[in-house]
Amino acid sequence: MFQTFEVTARPEQGPPRLAALREEMAGAGLDGFLVPRADAHQGEYVAARDARLAWLTGFTGSAGFCVALRDIAGVFIDGRYRTQVKDQVADVYTPVPWPDVRMGDWLKDQLPQGGKVGFDPWLHAVAQLREARRSLDGTGIELIAHDNLVDRIWPDQPAPPAEPARAHPLDFAGETARAKRERLGRELAAAGHRGAVLTLPDSIMWLLNIRGSDIERNPVAQCFAILYDTGAVDLFITPSKVADLADHLGGDVTVWPTATLIDALEALDGPIRYDPGSAPQAVADALGERGTEGPDPCLLPKACKNEAEIAGSAAAHLRDGAAMVECLAWLDAQAPGTITEIDVVRRLEACRRQDNALQDISFETISGTGPNGAIMHYRVTEETDATLQDGHLLVLDSGGQYLDGTTDITRTIAVGEIGHEERAAFTRVLQGMIAMSRLRWPRGHSGREIEAVGRMPLWLAGQDFNHGLGHGVGAYLSVHEGPQRLSRTSDVALQPGMILSNEPGYYREGAFGIRIENLLVVQAATPPEGADPEREMYDWRTLTFVPIDRRCILADMLAVEERAWLDAYHSQVWDKIAPRVGDDARAWLKQACAPL
Amino acid sequence: MFQTFEVTARPEQGPPRLAALREEMAGAGLDGFLVPRADAHQGEYVAARDARLAWLTGFTGSAGFCVALRDIAGVFIDGRYRTQVKDQVADVYTPVPWPDVRMGDWLKDQLPQGGKVGFDPWLHAVAQLREARRSLDGTGIELIAHDNLVDRIWPDQPAPPAEPARAHPLDFAGETARAKRERLGRELAAAGHRGAVLTLPDSIMWLLNIRGSDIERNPVAQCFAILYDTGAVDLFITPSKVADLADHLGGDVTVWPTATLIDALEALDGPIRYDPGSAPQAVADALGERGTEGPDPCLLPKACKNEAEIAGSAAAHLRDGAAMVECLAWLDAQAPGTITEIDVVRRLEACRRQDNALQDISFETISGTGPNGAIMHYRVTEETDATLQDGHLLVLDSGGQYLDGTTDITRTIAVGEIGHEERAAFTRVLQGMIAMSRLRWPRGHSGREIEAVGRMPLWLAGQDFNHGLGHGVGAYLSVHEGPQRLSRTSDVALQPGMILSNEPGYYREGAFGIRIENLLVVQAATPPEGADPEREMYDWRTLTFVPIDRRCILADMLAVEERAWLDAYHSQVWDKIAPRVGDDARAWLKQACAPL
Repeated sequence: MFQTFEVTARPEQGPPRLAALREEMAGAGLDGFLVPRADAHQGEYVAARDARLAWLTGFTGSAGFCVALRDIAGVFIDGRYRTQVKDQVADVYTPVPWPDVRMGDWLKDQLPQGGKVGFDPWLHAVAQLREARRSLDGTGIELIAHDNLVDRIWPDQPAPPAEPARAHPLDFAGETARAKRERLGRELAAAGHRGAVLTLPDSIMWLLNIRGSDIERNPVAQCFAILYDTGAVDLFITPSKVADLADHLGGDVTVWPTATLIDALEALDGPIRYDPGSAPQAVADALGERGTEGPDPCLLPKACKNEAEIAGSAAAHLRDGAAMVECLAWLDAQAPGTITEIDVVRRLEACRRQDNALQDISFETISGTGPNGAIMHYRVTEETDATLQDGHLLVLDSGGQYLDGTTDITRTIAVGEIGHEERAAFTRVLQGMIAMSRLRWPRGHSGREIEAVGRMPLWLAGQDFNHGLGHGVGAYLSVHEGPQRLSRTSDVALQPGMILSNEPGYYREGAFGIRIENLLVVQAATPPEGADPEREMYDWRTLTFVPIDRRCILADMLAVEERAWLDAYHSQVWDKIAPRVGDDARAWLKQACAPL
Repeated sequence: MFQTFEVTARPEQGPPRLAALREEMAGAGLDGFLVPRADAHQGEYVAARDARLAWLTGFTGSAGFCVALRDIAGVFIDGRYRTQVKDQVADVYTPVPWPDVRMGDWLKDQLPQGGKVGFDPWLHAVAQLREARRSLDGTGIELIAHDNLVDRIWPDQPAPPAEPARAHPLDFAGETARAKRERLGRELAAAGHRGAVLTLPDSIMWLLNIRGSDIERNPVAQCFAILYDTGAVDLFITPSKVADLADHLGGDVTVWPTATLIDALEALDGPIRYDPGSAPQAVADALGERGTEGPDPCLLPKACKNEAEIAGSAAAHLRDGAAMVECLAWLDAQAPGTITEIDVVRRLEACRRQDNALQDISFETISGTGPNGAIMHYRVTEETDATLQDGHLLVLDSGGQYLDGTTDITRTIAVGEIGHEERAAFTRVLQGMIAMSRLRWPRGHSGREIEAVGRMPLWLAGQDFNHGLGHGVGAYLSVHEGPQRLSRTSDVALQPGMILSNEPGYYREGAFGIRIENLLVVQAATPPEGADPEREMYDWRTLTFVPIDRRCILADMLAVEERAWLDAYHSQVWDKIAPRVGDDARAWLKQACAPL
């Protein structure tokens, strides 16, 4: 089992650890210290060694930070975690709603006389720190780089991960690392940059066609790299991780111990690019005037999957879809009141594991029934585990990591007989999901400029949901991958090969939740009869093939085209998945894919 | 008749005028001179004296500029004017597609050895000039402020307009000028600014509750102003224009001759705000270090109409709608082949003039039949005037200026029996227009974030149109008013009281054009049953009530809700307009408003 269900937060450990941190602060002459969730690579998941925020405070959410001062310690958490934080931290910690309250404003209130607040320059990205400093302009409060005080007081802090990395086969990568390096090197040269510092592990994994096992759920190895305009690479990594990869990496990739990065940066000739959105302040400091800001050169090419990556993802989705169907068929055979959320997670992971291809789950499965379904990032534990009751909706959001692709799928399933209000809301969510799936749009548009299409059915009913419509997904990499998003926060033009989720939802606190999610790839659209000549347009190829629960739909609400889309989708699901499942699941699939 | 139909461009006058300009350039030691369409107030319409671009080149479009060099003279025009410019300018002028080709890049090609290019600092906004200078970085080409060389060679250049301004009644303005001045003065004080320079006449008209007659189609007087943090105003204007308005303006508004503006700016204590998007470079130069950039403080309050302005606009639209219905009823009674585009323009203006309330038309009526309908900004002249033929679509886009409001409406009308393709395209345009009209959306969204809803039906057919879905409209002010727009170019959050057009279209070059346009006001939406509590949402109140041509619709393409919207709209049109038109028009209206 990849997933566990224990309650990891120990609120009672928070007070003594905070006291120890404050002693270190005093010794260092600091009035405060910043403890972010992030590691030096700004990833969504961190290694055990880097889980400083959880160790200090007890809070285990995937985003947030603590600002420990002498008399107060704020734990800044976003809307997803407002409830969770209360259960996880002791009362020496003060939850602060973020980004509603900005750190700078909070500090001004707490340190009206000014003061010195320390931070670890490896754990804060350049742009983030700049914004924080700007908000403190004129207050006399200083942010001061310092070695990490939490590491000083953490006696049994785990060692950095050092799992071996593996070569990622060319069949799945679709382009040799050498071709990638040289292509991006030429782009750097054209921009007048001598090189670029890479600090995102998934960028480096993609560039060098390798994968790692340092971080759970994400097949990456912790490392840094410098890509030169020649296409050569200096790779900064625990050397044992790549001891077996010398041939794969080739002569143009030189391996150095991670600790030598700063010396190497200090010896470089400029201009050297770094991405202010992800590069640690320590990197910018080492480069000084030789540094220049610009996007990580791997971001966009990594986001635009090539043919092999798209074919791999499609294959992974069929395999993953068969596992989902096996699980859903089993689920429907269980009487209401007889199984729990954890039972579903266990069964689903078992179904995914039946195929030896599963490398990991791509994130902790969200299995929320009844009111738990309304908690967007619900992680079921032994304490919260609820029984699936007649009339409940179950939100089941999960994914797998396969060598050929990363999956992410949500289905919402009716347990027994559900109410009219649930069905009406489900149908509106489905209408938004269908509208986005059917969309065709002119080249150049960003997620921000088309997202409304997937929300409109809810908007018309005076309803909405508080998360983006979709996020980018990697190719056997991160399940949340930028820069593309179907969201008001994304101005990045959608381009062919980008994989995104399409996942509208609806959440009624204390009552029920709904989310339906497929993964889609942007592709050049085939012009229909009568299309404007020379107008370049894009549409979606669907990757996910798993039935959508027809019992949750109020068919009368659907327009002719919506019904036609659903029936055609289910017909494809049947064709693609039926040959891949057992007899019981196939019988179930048959009725699940019947026309509405 | 406000509108005229003569061909105003005289291409043959271009060459001698360009030669004279080049002599002045040589005398001034310049390698080039910029001649923009704009005046010092960056408005869409300019006074005769300021029509330098048209006088020099012959090009009469509403946007563009000429860069006259010693050996070449580029006329930069956008996509709307690619055809028109060819007919209007002599071959000493080289049309340059803009913004595809940026001025800086073109200059680099034409002046590879560097050079000095003069410009009139009153005619270029700060941000525009900054962008131009940035694009010339490192080329050795300099942009040099100079007095206007065109004014030197224009012997019979008209005098600046000096028509009297009038007070705008409080019944229509809804807020006293004093209240506006004091409110905005407080906002300046809160921002730490001593004052703001206003250079947009419509901002000043709005602020002081006055209107003018200097510029056709726009009821504004040319002037500048300084609004102080106290709420006091210095108004820089030809004093005779406001000789009768001393009481209306009151003691806190001091009138100065326009020519004293620069001296006044040089004497101010800073910080003084100016809007880089519209303030002339001459203003920024005069302020120097005492200047600070920020939005024109009138922009947003002017855009958010108050109750009186909305009520006025609604009243103006009923009056204007009755005129449109009279014209459309007459139009339908004319046999195909018997009338021309100009006949329609004359008749429409006559219908609008039947009511004495009409102050002006709000722009030149676009009356384009058959292929002319595909020219988005078509202005019919005696040379282009086409007969309405059986099978044609007529695009009729027009508006009126009334004391209580500004209107802008487009209807597309079938002449005789039109084809299936035209009807299918019309229906898609209508579906987009209905989708936007029905929309409800969460507070905080900009035009950019909802525009797709009005384009989606065309997109699904592989079609689109090359203009925004909608623009802001003033309250007896400019028919194109910022900052709000339904467009990918607008990040401004839509707010209650903003009036916008909703005008999707479709254009097939050489064949036909379609556009349907209503004006709408943003309002707080009434939550429907089952809406999320506490979720603040907006929707539209419709202002325009004129039938949409049912003969152009393929009813089978419409969803139930779309049909219901159209029938309900037509029922409202009947209720509101029938009492306002004559017997013939009423009989016509009856059938035009029948359910589909």
